[in-house]
Amino acid sequence: MSAEKIQIFDTTLRDGEQVPGCKLNKKQKLEIAARLDELGVDIIEAGFPISSPGDFDAVDSISKLVKNATVCGLTRANKKDIESAAKALRHAIKPRIHTGIGTSDSHIVHKFNSNRDAIIERAVEAVTYAKTFVDDVEFYAEDAGRTDNAFLAQVCEEVIKAGATVLNIPDTTGYCLPFEYGNKIKYLKDHVQGIDNVIISCHNHNDLGLATANAVAGAINGARQIECTINGIGERAGNTALEEIVMIFRQHKELNFYTDINAQMLTELSQLTSETMGMMVQPNKAIVGSNAFAHSSGIHQDGVIKNRETYEIINPADVGVNESSIILTARSGRSALAYRLKDIGFDTSRNELDILYEQFLAIADVKKEVVREDLIGLMHQFNQTTQRKFA
Amino acid sequence: MSAEKIQIFDTTLRDGEQVPGCKLNKKQKLEIAARLDELGVDIIEAGFPISSPGDFDAVDSISKLVKNATVCGLTRANKKDIESAAKALRHAIKPRIHTGIGTSDSHIVHKFNSNRDAIIERAVEAVTYAKTFVDDVEFYAEDAGRTDNAFLAQVCEEVIKAGATVLNIPDTTGYCLPFEYGNKIKYLKDHVQGIDNVIISCHNHNDLGLATANAVAGAINGARQIECTINGIGERAGNTALEEIVMIFRQHKELNFYTDINAQMLTELSQLTSETMGMMVQPNKAIVGSNAFAHSSGIHQDGVIKNRETYEIINPADVGVNESSIILTARSGRSALAYRLKDIGFDTSRNELDILYEQFLAIADVKKEVVREDLIGLMHQFNQTTQRKFA
Repeated sequence: MSAEKIQIFDTTLRDGEQVPGCKLNKKQKLEIAARLDELGVDIIEAGFPISSPGDFDAVDSISKLVKNATVCGLTRANKKDIESAAKALRHAIKPRIHTGIGTSDSHIVHKFNSNRDAIIERAVEAVTYAKTFVDDVEFYAEDAGRTDNAFLAQVCEEVIKAGATVLNIPDTTGYCLPFEYGNKIKYLKDHVQGIDNVIISCHNHNDLGLATANAVAGAINGARQIECTINGIGERAGNTALEEIVMIFRQHKELNFYTDINAQMLTELSQLTSETMGMMVQPNKAIVGSNAFAHSSGIHQDGVIKNRETYEIINPADVGVNESSIILTARSGRSALAYRLKDIGFDTSRNELDILYEQFLAIADVKKEVVREDLIGLMHQFNQTTQRKFA
Repeated sequence: MSAEKIQIFDTTLRDGEQVPGCKLNKKQKLEIAARLDELGVDIIEAGFPISSPGDFDAVDSISKLVKNATVCGLTRANKKDIESAAKALRHAIKPRIHTGIGTSDSHIVHKFNSNRDAIIERAVEAVTYAKTFVDDVEFYAEDAGRTDNAFLAQVCEEVIKAGATVLNIPDTTGYCLPFEYGNKIKYLKDHVQGIDNVIISCHNHNDLGLATANAVAGAINGARQIECTINGIGERAGNTALEEIVMIFRQHKELNFYTDINAQMLTELSQLTSETMGMMVQPNKAIVGSNAFAHSSGIHQDGVIKNRETYEIINPADVGVNESSIILTARSGRSALAYRLKDIGFDTSRNELDILYEQFLAIADVKKEVVREDLIGLMHQFNQTTQRKFA
């Protein structure tokens, strides 16, 4: 069976950029949009046009710039929002309007002070109106994660009839467990008439640390689009991280999915996003954190030196990192020390290494990391004591 | 059915502290150990005693300090390591030796240049020897994530016979998908004689962003201990984050699990760990990131102001955060502006708000965040123009 494509819907410039402190100017937005297009994302959500004149302008400019990806603008389920998005997207080669409404009881009652029938009516009206401007209309059922499955299926069926091409099933509050979110997608595949003619999309939040796992569970159960952001940025604890999804499908061929992302650009895109948004990536972030390929425990270092795959499932070069690091700390063993000494030109015998290792540990116990300069100092002193001349 | 307890095995001071840049001095280690004990973790892995004199000393001191938790020391499967750990743990009220060996073919061939029978023999010898010092012996089958299930079951059965009390099934390289890791645990529950008399432990790495999801899948399939760290720090992309596990079991009562963690201390422990290790937590980190409870999009802010639960599944106070934030940016709507204006003493009419909102957007389009001082300036100008005097 040939592998199936998962569309990557990037919302770095919408769900990401709306985050406290992440606001970009127009030039920065255009730079990121251009790089996302090169990266190979299928859809770029460029903003929420009605929300401010600056946002409208950004969506308009990105629409003119992007060559390959679909450009998408967010709206609520009302005419003014949809008109604004349609106008901002008018120069896009492949425009998409992303409209929708809350479908959970919590949203229907507390946010809209409404009822289920009225919500379906508004959803259908919004999709119908959006279709008068563009062919490609994505509908989001906000808080789908907490929406009763039977009602959710009903909403989906009606918006498909109204012309929706993509159904976004967001776990807006990041509440779902993977098996639960996967079951929700399966339920829709099994119960919604016409569902096989549209694409189901996963939009997951990371409030419990499960955004990526939930999106993967969604794909396994029938979704074919994943909404994500570079570095997993986004509202609150963020969204599914694009780089994690891409590498999961690359590493797990048995899932039979692929994306069109050029993974070697992932590290560069991560750094560009982090720097322009001033949104730092923690060292222990999967795939793109500064420690993602750093080995420090003696046991691990020894294994990696003997054979990279002992502790590394991803070749760092595949995501654009030059090499994995062997960092020397008090937890490093003899083989790591020998490896790093050899790297700077010193080939040590076993006996020499025993002596050097004791001296190394004395340094390592008082320093966080033993760096190149420390090793050179160590060897200098050793040369003087032993009269041996290393090359 | 009454809820079942999941033991929390904290390895912040071992798998976390061995990370490049995270080295702590003894005073700092003792401070964190004391706070972990108060937090309610069941086991504190205090270090790897043979690895350096500093580490031995830390395990020894933590053993003397800790009142409630089991104190654990890591070893490889050899006598010198085990003797060192036993000595470092001799003052612990509840000592545990954590010994083990690689069981995947990759580890057996490339790391040990050995074979399966010899590995089982070494595993049994190590557990048997550790039992001569302590009752509580945890065995790790390193790289269990990539170990053939039938062989893994055989190893487990033999070490249980030798007296192991806990079986740690680490996904050392962070390779597994949640359903795959869950199935591995289920396989062991179904095939290993004596497994119901020991505790199965999940030790997951985050290389693909799935550590937390994998540990939860492990628990659902029969594991009753989860190894984790504060902020998810640890080798490479880190380990399962303690705070995520604790809050998942609190929020998902239907799983029927509980932990003994005092969740209100989570934010404080996160900050203490981050500050003493110099290991920053990204703003979009689940539960403990600075944005974890910050709402900035207009749609979300509006919902939260009407009813907190519209967009928040966790009450920030439950993890020790004073309140969720309504951050004003260009994506904020009228209701967020009105909320924040009210918060600083200005009650605005609908008409006034319309005028103020336009002025607010002009500021927001050029600033990342509109702060309290901006709002005071805005109202000052508005008062002058309109001659209205706000309180």
